[in-house]
Amino acid sequence: MDLRGVFPPVVTPFRDDGSLDLEAFGANLDAYSSEDLAGCLVLGSNGEAASLEDDEKLALVRAARSRTTGRTLLVGTGLESTRATIALTKRVADVGADAALVLTPHYYKPQMNVDALRGHFEAVAEASPIPVLLYSVPQFTGIPFPAPLAALVAGHPRIVGMKESSGDVGLLGRIVGSAPPSFRVLCGSAGVFYPALCLGASGGVLAVACCSPRPVAALYRAFERGDHAQARRLQEVLAPLAAAVTSAHGVAGLKAAMDAVGRRGGSVRLPLRPAPASLAREIRPLLEQAESAV
Amino acid sequence: MDLRGVFPPVVTPFRDDGSLDLEAFGANLDAYSSEDLAGCLVLGSNGEAASLEDDEKLALVRAARSRTTGRTLLVGTGLESTRATIALTKRVADVGADAALVLTPHYYKPQMNVDALRGHFEAVAEASPIPVLLYSVPQFTGIPFPAPLAALVAGHPRIVGMKESSGDVGLLGRIVGSAPPSFRVLCGSAGVFYPALCLGASGGVLAVACCSPRPVAALYRAFERGDHAQARRLQEVLAPLAAAVTSAHGVAGLKAAMDAVGRRGGSVRLPLRPAPASLAREIRPLLEQAESAV
Amino acid sequence: MDLRGVFPPVVTPFRDDGSLDLEAFGANLDAYSSEDLAGCLVLGSNGEAASLEDDEKLALVRAARSRTTGRTLLVGTGLESTRATIALTKRVADVGADAALVLTPHYYKPQMNVDALRGHFEAVAEASPIPVLLYSVPQFTGIPFPAPLAALVAGHPRIVGMKESSGDVGLLGRIVGSAPPSFRVLCGSAGVFYPALCLGASGGVLAVACCSPRPVAALYRAFERGDHAQARRLQEVLAPLAAAVTSAHGVAGLKAAMDAVGRRGGSVRLPLRPAPASLAREIRPLLEQAESAV
Amino acid sequence: MDLRGVFPPVVTPFRDDGSLDLEAFGANLDAYSSEDLAGCLVLGSNGEAASLEDDEKLALVRAARSRTTGRTLLVGTGLESTRATIALTKRVADVGADAALVLTPHYYKPQMNVDALRGHFEAVAEASPIPVLLYSVPQFTGIPFPAPLAALVAGHPRIVGMKESSGDVGLLGRIVGSAPPSFRVLCGSAGVFYPALCLGASGGVLAVACCSPRPVAALYRAFERGDHAQARRLQEVLAPLAAAVTSAHGVAGLKAAMDAVGRRGGSVRLPLRPAPASLAREIRPLLEQAESAV
Repeated sequence: MDLRGVFPPVVTPFRDDGSLDLEAFGANLDAYSSEDLAGCLVLGSNGEAASLEDDEKLALVRAARSRTTGRTLLVGTGLESTRATIALTKRVADVGADAALVLTPHYYKPQMNVDALRGHFEAVAEASPIPVLLYSVPQFTGIPFPAPLAALVAGHPRIVGMKESSGDVGLLGRIVGSAPPSFRVLCGSAGVFYPALCLGASGGVLAVACCSPRPVAALYRAFERGDHAQARRLQEVLAPLAAAVTSAHGVAGLKAAMDAVGRRGGSVRLPLRPAPASLAREIRPLLEQAESAV
Repeated sequence: MDLRGVFPPVVTPFRDDGSLDLEAFGANLDAYSSEDLAGCLVLGSNGEAASLEDDEKLALVRAARSRTTGRTLLVGTGLESTRATIALTKRVADVGADAALVLTPHYYKPQMNVDALRGHFEAVAEASPIPVLLYSVPQFTGIPFPAPLAALVAGHPRIVGMKESSGDVGLLGRIVGSAPPSFRVLCGSAGVFYPALCLGASGGVLAVACCSPRPVAALYRAFERGDHAQARRLQEVLAPLAAAVTSAHGVAGLKAAMDAVGRRGGSVRLPLRPAPASLAREIRPLLEQAESAV
Repeated sequence: MDLRGVFPPVVTPFRDDGSLDLEAFGANLDAYSSEDLAGCLVLGSNGEAASLEDDEKLALVRAARSRTTGRTLLVGTGLESTRATIALTKRVADVGADAALVLTPHYYKPQMNVDALRGHFEAVAEASPIPVLLYSVPQFTGIPFPAPLAALVAGHPRIVGMKESSGDVGLLGRIVGSAPPSFRVLCGSAGVFYPALCLGASGGVLAVACCSPRPVAALYRAFERGDHAQARRLQEVLAPLAAAVTSAHGVAGLKAAMDAVGRRGGSVRLPLRPAPASLAREIRPLLEQAESAV
Repeated sequence: MDLRGVFPPVVTPFRDDGSLDLEAFGANLDAYSSEDLAGCLVLGSNGEAASLEDDEKLALVRAARSRTTGRTLLVGTGLESTRATIALTKRVADVGADAALVLTPHYYKPQMNVDALRGHFEAVAEASPIPVLLYSVPQFTGIPFPAPLAALVAGHPRIVGMKESSGDVGLLGRIVGSAPPSFRVLCGSAGVFYPALCLGASGGVLAVACCSPRPVAALYRAFERGDHAQARRLQEVLAPLAAAVTSAHGVAGLKAAMDAVGRRGGSVRLPLRPAPASLAREIRPLLEQAESAV
């Protein structure tokens, strides 16, 4: 399993009545298969995992597995309770997940200290049949990632890395610096992908790769070959695109951007609401600018 | 259904292996039945709802219903997606819930504006067979309650009130002042129960009532009969108790306090961890002080 | 010196060119002298103390002293450094201040722990010729007040109380409960004046008293004679007025409200900007509603 | 005036009695004059500007000017009021400051929106005889920097750049990307100096350069000549040093680190308190590691 490169956190398309649109989901993955991507993440935050039932989750993993040959299939399995996370991790492993991305539990915020988080991640890793990555996304969970935690859990043979989505590049650098080189840190914030690579991130799981995989992959390759000028140039066009697509309207914005470029974003599930119709018009020039910078 | 008075948000006792202890759950409810309480809340934050499976939730509601004759049974049904919340609300209504307490969805924080929250609550109320209360607890959800929302949704015939657990008494006062009198506001923060009553709260859903129902009920009755001096005195002894029981150790602290007074708190589920053994010793004088102030 | 009752935190009127308008300042104080007020606070947050020079501050205290006969003159003297705070406290004492209100230092936020704050307040009290009150206003300073601090410093013979402006009534209650009765707690948030009195506040320093002293004083008197129904009624009309006057536009809003009722608010100093012209029209009905509720 | 390279934000040494130690101040500057530095910043946050009197400030600028020949002398002049900031800016210009670093006003936080901040900075720049840089340091001011503000004010001929100390590299990148190339952005957070340079920062104003100028300057030079591997290596040793020196103990920690390497940190002014005696011992290996990485 290779954790270097770019992974789109694929969306879960819904029909207008809120039902799962597996056909659209498959079509998106087929389209990604010809791009320069390392794999994909299913059931992440942009996949609306929090609004999916268990059977839907398994159907999505199966569909993704059959279309991700030879690439890495990451699957989000983090739930509030340790036991439920373990159960889901086992089930997605059974249907082909290569690794589980485990969100920090976060409902009981005041109790989620280093000890509680360490206990959770190690218990999940101990029971998991597949490698485990930590997943920190404070803008959704409301809890910051304690920098020393990565090094504490990196000793477990099945904890192989993390997705760091706070956008705090200094924190990402401290994590890379404190953990062994085998612990891979994936950047989850497109606005800082290039500086995160500079500090040792092995790749990125970036929403903007769902609608614009080419410039994201080109940034990664430019960095890989030491072309910092091109990497910075691509970063500068991706930053406003990422901000416009996801910062203002979240998953609905990302789905609208996908629709605008011929992918199939589909509807969101309530309580999320559709992005305003004007969004597609606003982001089109940013999308084109990003493509033409490659 | 009467929403005045004190409701303990009952805990869900687990055995040491993490399995549900329905017998201990029932024993607690039996004990509460002889106290001056208006009913109880099942599947709230202190009930570790976030760590329970659907079948466990229904078993708990059934068990609570059979032991809450003639009193109000509130049941927490809020989940991230509107459709899942509706489904669970219907199922708990089928097994006897009097009203559903619907948590603000909160994972996609930046999108949870007034419109999204209003859409969620009204859709749930529209589909629900039973009355609905809103539930705001920012220390867990990470999102503040927009003060104007209460008045906006109070017009729906099945939205009958809310549980306000932020501890922000000014906000509670603005909600009471803006909504019609039929919209009941329950205080969810024991440290401000008395001032909340002064500003028009109709009662409280207070964790400390799980271990010390008597002083909490006495505070409510003192207020009801206009004995402000006694209400304030009880508030002063309850405030440090509430802080010691739940602020430092959360649900685990509450369960330890229940064990200390002969109720059956039981274990917590991971990632929550047990309270330190010293806690029971520390809170005993506070428990005794509260009881002797009645 | 009596710290019970209502104190307006008087504004500092400026002319359009930014110069101090001492004549308008005096006119306001003359108007307050016929109201049921316990005194006033000069050089508080609403007095734009942060934008005043030392000689202006002394001129304001002198002018206030000559118009506050037989009432308590509180003067804000808190600066970032302990030595500068001591120097200013001595100077305002020389020109007639009855007590100094000392803001929590706050620039070096991470260092302002209980020890540093305690050291500051005790050093100021030790050197001060007049009694000292603590002043906590987290919405401006960005630092919360550590609840145990009040009891720690209350033992100093010249530390006689505090102004608590966070609006967190639970915190105010814990402070009152932990400190000796001689330590007076003044509520600094009009939205929670009545519940703060219920929990033992001895009075209030409330911006809304600068434009509407009568209903604020009436609330205090209603509480004093045990008329909770009238106190709550007045609280309900004061809450939206206070929110409209200061929450949206700060000192500029308060000055506009004063102008609207015949007091002399005057201009603000840059970087503050004038309130929109529409504000006076918006708040007039709220002002009238508050007056007519007395 | 050249805003590229490394600027130490020099400390203000005090004697044990709190008086200004100009001799120690001068000795530090003399030591810096033989290092590869672009100049220095006087009266910044690490210079305890918030605790200095006006005459002390001018004495420090004069002393710095006489020891900063041929290099750029930046001077912090930001105060809460626009008029006071203008007055101080003129006075430091008179005694030799090359440019003024103007802190965001922040006491009236809710009012400090883009319009108010823009008005402040443009008014100061309009009146200033010397170039002006903005200064954002949210960990002290409590207000975030609105990303679009930089481009809005960059059009003023005397606003030449900013110091961005939030540590948010994505924000720094958006500022660089939105403002004209003549607008220089200096990084104020040593933990992200290298990634900030990657995104277009022209240099850094970094506390750690007060005690370890050599590795900081070496990082800048490595980046300048395109040696990313060496820049990253130096970043990795500077990050824990910067965290140990300033994060835990602030200015007092920095002064202790200076004392440990033969510079003259001196005492802090109250309410700041001295760093624990153990700090020097803890940071010595980090200091040595940083030096040996050059």
